[in-house]
Amino acid sequence: MDATLNARIRHSALEGKVVSAETAASWIQDGMVVGMSGFTRAGDAKTVPLALVERAKNEKFQIDVYTGASLGPEVDQLMADAGIIRKRAPYQGDPAIRKLINTGQVLYSDMHLSHNAELIRQGIIGPIDFAIIEATAITEDGMIIPTTSIGNSPIIVQMAKEIIIELNPEQPNLEGIHDIYLPGPQGDRDPIPLLTASDRIGTTGIPVDISKIKGIVHSTIKDAPSLIVQPDEETEQIAQHLLTFLRDEITAGRLPKNLLPLQSGVGSVANAVLNGFLNSEFEELEIYSEVLQDAVFNLLDANKVKIASGTSITLSEECGNKVYGDIGQYKDRLVLRPQEISNHPEVIRRIGIIAINTALETDIYGNVNSTHVNGTHMMNGLGGSGDFTRNARLGIFVTKSYAKGGDISSIVPMVAHHDHTEHDVDVIATEQGIADLRGMAPKERVKAIIENCVHPDFKEALWDYYNGAVEKTGNAHTPHDLEKALSWHVSYQKNKTMKQ
Amino acid sequence: MDATLNARIRHSALEGKVVSAETAASWIQDGMVVGMSGFTRAGDAKTVPLALVERAKNEKFQIDVYTGASLGPEVDQLMADAGIIRKRAPYQGDPAIRKLINTGQVLYSDMHLSHNAELIRQGIIGPIDFAIIEATAITEDGMIIPTTSIGNSPIIVQMAKEIIIELNPEQPNLEGIHDIYLPGPQGDRDPIPLLTASDRIGTTGIPVDISKIKGIVHSTIKDAPSLIVQPDEETEQIAQHLLTFLRDEITAGRLPKNLLPLQSGVGSVANAVLNGFLNSEFEELEIYSEVLQDAVFNLLDANKVKIASGTSITLSEECGNKVYGDIGQYKDRLVLRPQEISNHPEVIRRIGIIAINTALETDIYGNVNSTHVNGTHMMNGLGGSGDFTRNARLGIFVTKSYAKGGDISSIVPMVAHHDHTEHDVDVIATEQGIADLRGMAPKERVKAIIENCVHPDFKEALWDYYNGAVEKTGNAHTPHDLEKALSWHVSYQKNKTMKQ
Repeated sequence: MDATLNARIRHSALEGKVVSAETAASWIQDGMVVGMSGFTRAGDAKTVPLALVERAKNEKFQIDVYTGASLGPEVDQLMADAGIIRKRAPYQGDPAIRKLINTGQVLYSDMHLSHNAELIRQGIIGPIDFAIIEATAITEDGMIIPTTSIGNSPIIVQMAKEIIIELNPEQPNLEGIHDIYLPGPQGDRDPIPLLTASDRIGTTGIPVDISKIKGIVHSTIKDAPSLIVQPDEETEQIAQHLLTFLRDEITAGRLPKNLLPLQSGVGSVANAVLNGFLNSEFEELEIYSEVLQDAVFNLLDANKVKIASGTSITLSEECGNKVYGDIGQYKDRLVLRPQEISNHPEVIRRIGIIAINTALETDIYGNVNSTHVNGTHMMNGLGGSGDFTRNARLGIFVTKSYAKGGDISSIVPMVAHHDHTEHDVDVIATEQGIADLRGMAPKERVKAIIENCVHPDFKEALWDYYNGAVEKTGNAHTPHDLEKALSWHVSYQKNKTMKQ
Repeated sequence: MDATLNARIRHSALEGKVVSAETAASWIQDGMVVGMSGFTRAGDAKTVPLALVERAKNEKFQIDVYTGASLGPEVDQLMADAGIIRKRAPYQGDPAIRKLINTGQVLYSDMHLSHNAELIRQGIIGPIDFAIIEATAITEDGMIIPTTSIGNSPIIVQMAKEIIIELNPEQPNLEGIHDIYLPGPQGDRDPIPLLTASDRIGTTGIPVDISKIKGIVHSTIKDAPSLIVQPDEETEQIAQHLLTFLRDEITAGRLPKNLLPLQSGVGSVANAVLNGFLNSEFEELEIYSEVLQDAVFNLLDANKVKIASGTSITLSEECGNKVYGDIGQYKDRLVLRPQEISNHPEVIRRIGIIAINTALETDIYGNVNSTHVNGTHMMNGLGGSGDFTRNARLGIFVTKSYAKGGDISSIVPMVAHHDHTEHDVDVIATEQGIADLRGMAPKERVKAIIENCVHPDFKEALWDYYNGAVEKTGNAHTPHDLEKALSWHVSYQKNKTMKQ
């Protein structure tokens, strides 16, 4: 065992446990359920999955893969291409596996990210045959120190029959930043003792039954950097509309000057919106989110944010170099938690989150589609958007008002897939403006959304749809013309445009 | 002041506050926001609303009415007929007001029942000009003792500018059964210290700033009895399927022998399902629900249930006579809470509720419509179904597989309104059988639902729809044919049948 690894395997019972990736991969059998670390390309198991891909060149087998969220291309893409994934949950964001999901070759279960741990705990997901967990170290007292994400690793480690550790000295050493807390079984569970975004309530590592660790693999592959797109004029406009709205809430006495803890969904639009705080007057902000992207660290650097809590850190290459080159300066302003806690309804409702997530499309009543292109093709997945939106103080969705160069209106008569219902969505913001839907009846929402958020090219057509529906239904509670409700999507399918 | 009232107005500062209903009603001005007690026809303000209806014969005015949930016919029906309701929230269940909602004459905001209190606290609903609260007594130390429901009364009392009490000696005296706990503001809030269905965490009355009580009206009108329909053969079959499912969960080690706390939605089907436990082997059951209907008291009488917690008691006339004729025997087995607590995600997730709610229709992917007839016409409202389902250990929806004598299939290609998405629904049960959807990908759910839950008359047509959609989308993640997805509803609109 080389010295680097030796210093990181601090538990005496683990001597002699280091094996090659090929050996570890050989333990995974056809039909097994495998739980892996990894959340939005961060802290994912990499070396053993790659060895599985190698093995698949000579052998046919399939496994079910449960993770925190999406993995880097090493896993989701290469494993998908190798045909070894039978079922995947709870989130993915990779074009290769997406294609297999949308051609019926991979089963995909798209779940609220706070719910997975409960399902694993209950035995609905599982039994988990193997856990494969990337780690920075294993401590003297039997704890796994994760790398750049925590995700579902604690519950996977707790419930898995056997565990493979990918010990990765090339990954940033975040020891001390993690805060591991797992609730007990339902019916015999204490309140989660977290009162603010900065509270530490658990241990700095994942407690593990050392005897379950079957092997330790030396890994040297770094996280794949995030593919975030930089802010543009329109995302900047969305951010400005939101800042104006938040200022008005402060003026109305409904929010304190430093707001309430912010959550921002994964992806470029949400990241751009968060970046909008950089050149604002806001200070002493708190982040209680899921993925910490570039914008969070820009805000930490600018002293706009005083504490950032999440379950993973996913950065562009440039931002990663900056952050991990000097991680010490962030250590007392960062907390990583299990996704069960970062996304927990109990905590989100208690501390009063301002949740900002990206919509694929919304409709005139405020329903939101986060996942399905044209109602049928899975994009990435729901992620934590439902956990946060439903329980947030303010559940905000952002989207550009149009897509595909103007052929698609992001606001339609009826969304073709529903991830968040009219009951859950407080605010919708596009580059056109913002609609505050709180407390509104459906017909009030129609006016707020069409007048404030819709692109001018589609305004009249949406009013025409609505007025026709009012007439057809005798002005029912939620006027819809069921023969035309999905016609904009059908039009796009047939003519590649929603324009009439 | 007569002696009966005197004994119930125990706070010295309230002497001389008794006024006629007409006087109290005269304080309510056009355009005011009024918060009233009342939840599913129980404990609602009655006498002052009736005086408002009288006044409306000679004067034109409109008010916004916020309550716990639905009111008895004295309020929702007569006020609606009198044309004095501009906006109504968060729930109703009355044919007269429903008609006005569905013809554009009353605005209705249909909300998760656990969310209202937050919106009132934040000032999104309100400011509330007047609270009208039915009470059994006002105590020496300044607490309002509610009658048969609590609902949103505590937060309405806290936030209202002025308060009118309807002191009603004719209503059952439940003093000691209520448990009033209100969370603090978000961001400065402790965990809710409730660990089991039987825990008492608050006060037995609603704390009130006595100086806000502008008048006390003597009321003698009893609650309108519930209109519950007795179990029939098919609801009995649904109950039996559920009992079998729960037994299997116990066998699999996923539930303890006395299950976990049960929640049952309002209405006849859910009540019938709960009644199904009467002739079962289950014992020591707990109820942690919203409305306590007849079935709960039948189960208490049979010693099947050891504790029942809710926010209102809504009984048939016969059951009411039994229960209120001997309320003493139930006192230590009953707790009434604010709906913010009975329906709180934090509590529901912690104690691991088995939630049983009624669907109007579901689709082949497990989405549920709880509210809209044919996607456009409001029936009653969402109620607490979303609060419970999303956060439950087991989120179960029950419905007969057909309606309107067989012309409607309760399971359709795509629900015409989405209240609960595929991500939230664990189990669907009809008289045909039960589909356990936990952990399933969409295509797995299709098979489980069509094969187990659909009426034989519609099975083939649903498979035809699905197979066509698979072909049309190249077997996408969620196959739908958007040109046909709502065609069953259109067919019913045109031909009064979904049958081809």
